[in-house]
Amino acid sequence: MTSEGSQGGKPGSKTEISYGTNPLDDDKLHEECGVFGIFGTTDAAALTALGLHALQHRGQEGAGICSFDGERFNLVRRHGLVGDQFTKQKVINQLSGDSAIGHVRYSTAGGSGTRNIQPFFADLATGGIAVAHNGNLTNAETLRSELVAQGSIFQSTSDTETIIHLTARTETGPIADRLSRALRRVEGAYSLVAITNKKMIGVRDPMGVRPLALGRYEGQGWVLASESCAFDIIGAEFVRDIEPGEMVIITESGLESRRPFPPAPSKFCVFEYVYFARPDSTMGDQSVYEARKQIGRELAREAAADVDMVIPVPDSGVPAAIGFAEESGIPFELGIIRNHYVGRTFIEPSDQIRHLGVKLKHNASRAQLEGKKVVLIDDSIVRGTTSIKIVQMVREAGAKEVHMRIASPPTINSCFYGVNTPETEELLAYRMNVEEMARVINVDSLAFVSLDGLYRAVGEAKRNNDMPQYCDACFSGAYPTKLTDRSHAKSNGPSQLSLLIEQAAE
Amino acid sequence: MTSEGSQGGKPGSKTEISYGTNPLDDDKLHEECGVFGIFGTTDAAALTALGLHALQHRGQEGAGICSFDGERFNLVRRHGLVGDQFTKQKVINQLSGDSAIGHVRYSTAGGSGTRNIQPFFADLATGGIAVAHNGNLTNAETLRSELVAQGSIFQSTSDTETIIHLTARTETGPIADRLSRALRRVEGAYSLVAITNKKMIGVRDPMGVRPLALGRYEGQGWVLASESCAFDIIGAEFVRDIEPGEMVIITESGLESRRPFPPAPSKFCVFEYVYFARPDSTMGDQSVYEARKQIGRELAREAAADVDMVIPVPDSGVPAAIGFAEESGIPFELGIIRNHYVGRTFIEPSDQIRHLGVKLKHNASRAQLEGKKVVLIDDSIVRGTTSIKIVQMVREAGAKEVHMRIASPPTINSCFYGVNTPETEELLAYRMNVEEMARVINVDSLAFVSLDGLYRAVGEAKRNNDMPQYCDACFSGAYPTKLTDRSHAKSNGPSQLSLLIEQAAE
Amino acid sequence: MTSEGSQGGKPGSKTEISYGTNPLDDDKLHEECGVFGIFGTTDAAALTALGLHALQHRGQEGAGICSFDGERFNLVRRHGLVGDQFTKQKVINQLSGDSAIGHVRYSTAGGSGTRNIQPFFADLATGGIAVAHNGNLTNAETLRSELVAQGSIFQSTSDTETIIHLTARTETGPIADRLSRALRRVEGAYSLVAITNKKMIGVRDPMGVRPLALGRYEGQGWVLASESCAFDIIGAEFVRDIEPGEMVIITESGLESRRPFPPAPSKFCVFEYVYFARPDSTMGDQSVYEARKQIGRELAREAAADVDMVIPVPDSGVPAAIGFAEESGIPFELGIIRNHYVGRTFIEPSDQIRHLGVKLKHNASRAQLEGKKVVLIDDSIVRGTTSIKIVQMVREAGAKEVHMRIASPPTINSCFYGVNTPETEELLAYRMNVEEMARVINVDSLAFVSLDGLYRAVGEAKRNNDMPQYCDACFSGAYPTKLTDRSHAKSNGPSQLSLLIEQAAE
Amino acid sequence: MTSEGSQGGKPGSKTEISYGTNPLDDDKLHEECGVFGIFGTTDAAALTALGLHALQHRGQEGAGICSFDGERFNLVRRHGLVGDQFTKQKVINQLSGDSAIGHVRYSTAGGSGTRNIQPFFADLATGGIAVAHNGNLTNAETLRSELVAQGSIFQSTSDTETIIHLTARTETGPIADRLSRALRRVEGAYSLVAITNKKMIGVRDPMGVRPLALGRYEGQGWVLASESCAFDIIGAEFVRDIEPGEMVIITESGLESRRPFPPAPSKFCVFEYVYFARPDSTMGDQSVYEARKQIGRELAREAAADVDMVIPVPDSGVPAAIGFAEESGIPFELGIIRNHYVGRTFIEPSDQIRHLGVKLKHNASRAQLEGKKVVLIDDSIVRGTTSIKIVQMVREAGAKEVHMRIASPPTINSCFYGVNTPETEELLAYRMNVEEMARVINVDSLAFVSLDGLYRAVGEAKRNNDMPQYCDACFSGAYPTKLTDRSHAKSNGPSQLSLLIEQAAE
Repeated sequence: MTSEGSQGGKPGSKTEISYGTNPLDDDKLHEECGVFGIFGTTDAAALTALGLHALQHRGQEGAGICSFDGERFNLVRRHGLVGDQFTKQKVINQLSGDSAIGHVRYSTAGGSGTRNIQPFFADLATGGIAVAHNGNLTNAETLRSELVAQGSIFQSTSDTETIIHLTARTETGPIADRLSRALRRVEGAYSLVAITNKKMIGVRDPMGVRPLALGRYEGQGWVLASESCAFDIIGAEFVRDIEPGEMVIITESGLESRRPFPPAPSKFCVFEYVYFARPDSTMGDQSVYEARKQIGRELAREAAADVDMVIPVPDSGVPAAIGFAEESGIPFELGIIRNHYVGRTFIEPSDQIRHLGVKLKHNASRAQLEGKKVVLIDDSIVRGTTSIKIVQMVREAGAKEVHMRIASPPTINSCFYGVNTPETEELLAYRMNVEEMARVINVDSLAFVSLDGLYRAVGEAKRNNDMPQYCDACFSGAYPTKLTDRSHAKSNGPSQLSLLIEQAAE
Repeated sequence: MTSEGSQGGKPGSKTEISYGTNPLDDDKLHEECGVFGIFGTTDAAALTALGLHALQHRGQEGAGICSFDGERFNLVRRHGLVGDQFTKQKVINQLSGDSAIGHVRYSTAGGSGTRNIQPFFADLATGGIAVAHNGNLTNAETLRSELVAQGSIFQSTSDTETIIHLTARTETGPIADRLSRALRRVEGAYSLVAITNKKMIGVRDPMGVRPLALGRYEGQGWVLASESCAFDIIGAEFVRDIEPGEMVIITESGLESRRPFPPAPSKFCVFEYVYFARPDSTMGDQSVYEARKQIGRELAREAAADVDMVIPVPDSGVPAAIGFAEESGIPFELGIIRNHYVGRTFIEPSDQIRHLGVKLKHNASRAQLEGKKVVLIDDSIVRGTTSIKIVQMVREAGAKEVHMRIASPPTINSCFYGVNTPETEELLAYRMNVEEMARVINVDSLAFVSLDGLYRAVGEAKRNNDMPQYCDACFSGAYPTKLTDRSHAKSNGPSQLSLLIEQAAE
Repeated sequence: MTSEGSQGGKPGSKTEISYGTNPLDDDKLHEECGVFGIFGTTDAAALTALGLHALQHRGQEGAGICSFDGERFNLVRRHGLVGDQFTKQKVINQLSGDSAIGHVRYSTAGGSGTRNIQPFFADLATGGIAVAHNGNLTNAETLRSELVAQGSIFQSTSDTETIIHLTARTETGPIADRLSRALRRVEGAYSLVAITNKKMIGVRDPMGVRPLALGRYEGQGWVLASESCAFDIIGAEFVRDIEPGEMVIITESGLESRRPFPPAPSKFCVFEYVYFARPDSTMGDQSVYEARKQIGRELAREAAADVDMVIPVPDSGVPAAIGFAEESGIPFELGIIRNHYVGRTFIEPSDQIRHLGVKLKHNASRAQLEGKKVVLIDDSIVRGTTSIKIVQMVREAGAKEVHMRIASPPTINSCFYGVNTPETEELLAYRMNVEEMARVINVDSLAFVSLDGLYRAVGEAKRNNDMPQYCDACFSGAYPTKLTDRSHAKSNGPSQLSLLIEQAAE
Repeated sequence: MTSEGSQGGKPGSKTEISYGTNPLDDDKLHEECGVFGIFGTTDAAALTALGLHALQHRGQEGAGICSFDGERFNLVRRHGLVGDQFTKQKVINQLSGDSAIGHVRYSTAGGSGTRNIQPFFADLATGGIAVAHNGNLTNAETLRSELVAQGSIFQSTSDTETIIHLTARTETGPIADRLSRALRRVEGAYSLVAITNKKMIGVRDPMGVRPLALGRYEGQGWVLASESCAFDIIGAEFVRDIEPGEMVIITESGLESRRPFPPAPSKFCVFEYVYFARPDSTMGDQSVYEARKQIGRELAREAAADVDMVIPVPDSGVPAAIGFAEESGIPFELGIIRNHYVGRTFIEPSDQIRHLGVKLKHNASRAQLEGKKVVLIDDSIVRGTTSIKIVQMVREAGAKEVHMRIASPPTINSCFYGVNTPETEELLAYRMNVEEMARVINVDSLAFVSLDGLYRAVGEAKRNNDMPQYCDACFSGAYPTKLTDRSHAKSNGPSQLSLLIEQAAE
């Protein structure tokens, strides 16, 4: 994660709005990264590009791939989508080698440079290393200040670079030992992949907040990825999740597993099941799609609705809506049609179009909705902006009653573990209770699944208050780690450089 | 339609493949155009851009808008999507005026110029006229040869230009009379919109093969569009379909309806219900979404399947799959997940990626499918290439039995009325019977809805052999018009110019 | 020539300023076109690109090449410079064939489309023809109105298209006959090249206002070009000028020369010697460089200056300055240095930079100029804007006295024969006499070469008032043809289409 | 300087050739950088862009500007020309502040990333610093290895970064002290500008190999630039050269001059007079233009030629040719015409065009040359490739005798002080003597100015062998510093990263 976004950027400098990614428009929490790594096979970079493409939902701002070709490292980092930026033969040819790691990064407002796109590369005295990570450190700025005081020079504002500088500063030794020493100094969430000239390394933080899975490629290569759907696209076999606190070191001789950290309770992010992960991924031995259907069933049991049809808010509300419809016996209908051509690129709508907002993406189908009582199923409410527009659109299409059911508890706290959340004050559920929310959104009834219902849906009998089995801080406020940087007064942010724009020749 | 595609282009000159539009990849028939027009309101071009955006599924290669600003006409034609090319304030400002027409055009292989993008503009002796049309003339080349012999110079290979030259050559008189005289000489399908410095004109061919709807905008303006979903996006009210053989002439004084052609039986394209139209459009007083669900129900009745779940082939198979699931009582499940980031732009996959094909777009979810018996619902089979890949993917994800049901009859004939169809020999259903198809596609069973079932689903008791109520030539071979150009030996195609590339400054 | 410029375009719509071509900045008259054609050799398009590159000074807005490949024509028209747009192998490969013609076009303010870039192509009943022309017709609009009334549809506002429509409308016959009949109806200046599927044709108007030269390529092919420097670049041999009123028809059997027009006095544009042509070209059996040196000598004789050094205004003033220095015995010095990196592309200077104007291009060298008396030699004064800035810069660099000598007579009339001239009211010499000009430009003395001096320099004893041997209308007002369009009241300009923007995919 | 070029890059990966900068084509030595800095005025970045534009001849690959806006630093680094990349208001607005430094960089083969474009920025514990430098360190790699062993992470392969890391590692103290301590560890040539949040600093290495001048802007601001021509463009006043071994520290209180290094003999690069500097610059109290004319005069005295005319090889041969012509009394003529439109952007000529080479840039004017005896004046011969083509072209244009005179001694050694030189073996004068060179180049006679003649021309009575007053190592081999890196065996070059490509969104 970068802290660049949080320190502001120039207000007003943003002249283009993407309807695909603008939080005001899509009103979702966003995973900030996805990682992928592959070792021991030809075409490593092409396979990495495919894996990143399957992880594109975890970050759309930019992507990077670093390969090792037996002699040197090759690194390409570009703004834009993997399918656009990393599919040309010319690019892939620049990334030769039998091992590679890659990264997709979420778009943060205002940042138009490439310096925070991962992977990062460093020439250590013991050789080169490339690192990519998904997560966020909660003591990154504190560590950074110490390192700068010792003469380290940072090229980015990324946490990942802090890890690399810590590694470079540890006494010489095998790279895995140096990296372990460095990681023992950091707090927070990280799922990290790295390559050197001999190894691929994967690490998950002691509590395993962010996902990381291990796969096997054609019986010879090893694969690491944020989600198992990245294995499917290249035909790799899912082996298992990397465990919380585990470091795997992959060489030509095979895989070694280490436990470099003291034991800690597992606290996997429950929001991965709610929204972040792709429905065709499997996490913690559960199908994400099934988990979402189960949430829908819990919701139908906890908060039934007397309506003619169940309408998903496309596309993330679909699995919960199927579950809700099955449990309630009310027909499932596509009452809101998505325009597949929206958000294909960054667009700047003219003033005349701007007020139409949501209609560029969706249309409520009058033929289905006119005179009907409907329940809309969505995965979460963040600011509430999209919900308001969707309900208005459904009412304008003639619906007689509009109810809404949400497949997660109210979101009332910011995330510090690698998820882009608005300021607490912007969260609708922080600002008001459920009845007030229903009034603002203009629905006839509104209900959220309970936290216990969510735990049941993902396979736990109920939430254990003393030791939550998941990180649910966004709902509960129970942060599982120290928040060191937060407790320090910040003057100026991590860097005096407010803007860095680089533009290579095409 | 342009005949440029049919005469070949340079083989091998195409170095970029779009997974979104390449027929080899998506294996669909494609509507070749959508039209929109608006008269009597400010911001006519911005509203036209929105309308075209809602019609984007009818053509993705390029789009054009021509406005009249009270004094002169302004015309912008660009390759690419409306949402990318026509949303910048700068572009919209160039298109000032209170009336405008627009056009989206389907991508044809090899054509990289702009000369066939509509609308077309001509300075007639009586003033300027801009025309856009959806359809295809079956005597365009014959007429073109006559016109060239008389000294007319064509700038494109488009049918639309033939209509304009015919109009320019008729004796002087009111433009609607001149246009009527011209249209009486053409054969084929056309839904046409035009503006002059005083009027907007809409015409549908005598049999009404292609759709055209009339709407009202904020009580003052008039709107014409290929589909009613283009009214929804701007908040316009659907009034009625333009009738087959009707010409409407809209001026500041209001709307005049004429019947310039001899009466003819109505033969609306039934494939609009099957696939072309958006599900939230209404055509011929029917909801397209409901029609598709009905086809699914017919299919469940005609060809039941003993399976655990109904899986739609995304996204076009969804409504029929919901109908099939409701009728059969078998659960509807999303077993195939679509990657929303595919096809965002033209991409050129590297050799290493190319064989992965379908997986860039879809993933079959192992957690849903493993060990299950499933029926896949798709709207049609054209070449069969995608079906083969989808079935293979579903089997690899562990499905025990894979059945397939198709929500249209076998497609065995080319269309000559504005739809991009492969050569007959490429159509899978032309080359083999249903059992052979099942073997090739590798499904345990395969069935198509019957032609009578299709007619029932769209509201006719059954197909009337003597006078079909729809054009169903792609299934039946019963073409409702003469095919004049086809019966002429063609030497060289319509133009000696094989390539025209123009590149404006950015 | 296009009349688009003269009818205005949208004021204020131009947001980018090119310091290379903006008349306010470079304050020159500009040739509006250059043409090139080659017949009977492989690589015709590549050779045409080279020829056009050598003619780039005659037009920088855009360029086009049309080739014939034995079966079909291929046409590429692009904005920008030949060296940028037509040198990639990919582009040249699209233009296969053994004959080709090409065209470079001068930038007119506001026009951002490609429709007026030549060559133009038309499918006539007798086959295809591509035409490019340099010049301007003085009855083009009158003819255009007649043609439109008969049903012809124009795609551009170019004179060239008028010629093609006239040709298309003549009764069938050999193409050279049809073209001759068409040209007998037009008035004005034209040097035209054309290809058909069998021939290349070159024509110069009856008075030969614009240049056109004939060359031989490697003993087998024929070449036509506006200037002989285009032969040098491909190693072709200069044969002779096409004569005024001559049409050459080149086929595989050789060259045929015709005289399709009544005899007329020769009136070659004298400004070609002053500024338009490249100094290494030969026109009318004279070296352009030598002619310019002779003008400098005449100037030194007619208007001596008591100074320390002769300074050319770069780069067009150099040959005359060398002549002036030789004749006067005063040293020639480069006191003004040109920055070669200016004007490389269209730039939009920020407000802070804008006032610096001329310094982006030139710097007056203080070390040379401080305390010196200098005479600046320039080829012409149009609006005077650049002269004012240059003199100010030279004074600021410390020159004690600044005199100016101009290698042409005062420019007081617009050109109607293919040269971009400001409105008469903008011409400095039209608005004031020489003393007033000297005051405005802030020079200690100012003198222009006399018209007789100019005639002597280009080889005529003196100007013959009854029958000038050159067209010198910009100095004298003696237009050698009728100006038919000028005498008609114009309502609306040639087209109701004010804007056409087309953008092909890259 | 970067060592990236020297370690190779991927052979064959370069598909585009610039005729403007390709050493094979223009066959010149190239200055690798120009620097500029301004302090204490509004619009600092806009003025820096102008200054860099005036220094563009010192480097065309890329440019960067870093400003300090009172609170933070803003940095933009782009490939391409200053006039293209830094003139848009949008870019300049991103670079607000009252102090700024900038850099232009020479194009090195194969490097397509931005990581070596300067200025570099670092967050030191004491605050931010941005640095740009012109020159090359001869112990950079040795120092780099030490720093990496201590845990420093380099982001580039640039010498400048070595200086910054050394600075970051010195004990805390005023930045000027820290920088002085760092610079005392380096060997080689550097003219360096830096800004912090309070200061602008300029330093010239102890022997003053590369130039750096000091100016005053509107009586309030201070300016530093590689050449005085960068002061002229913004209207700044030249104050004096920064002296060898001098550090100037500019704050709001004024300018402080320090001498942080032990005294050393002055060894300014004499090739700046021969070719690198712009003729309108003043260096070491001498006009560069006058110095070049003087070299031409010396050459005329040392090696007269019995010819009809003196022809400069454009454009760098012009001043020496004027001097030669004046001294010899032989007329100066422009016999070779330069095409101003060449090299405007990177072009990739097709195979058909490639062999034409030099003719894209120049044309020899037959009308001047036919039957004449000529002497060509050029500034230097490096590989000889261009000389061969120029002479061939002049002979083909009909010259009877072709002599050549070179305004510098034979170039026989590589430069290690910031000039891009070919390998010694590629230098024509290293491979053969003058007669052999004359044969290869195909001239009737060839002569170079003597080293003593060169010293006389630039104002020294003669070269002092014990202590040369200039660095003339490229002619003499007498390198004025140790060449530490050269004496170390290099395994792998400075970085294991062979390729870094970053592409920001537009």
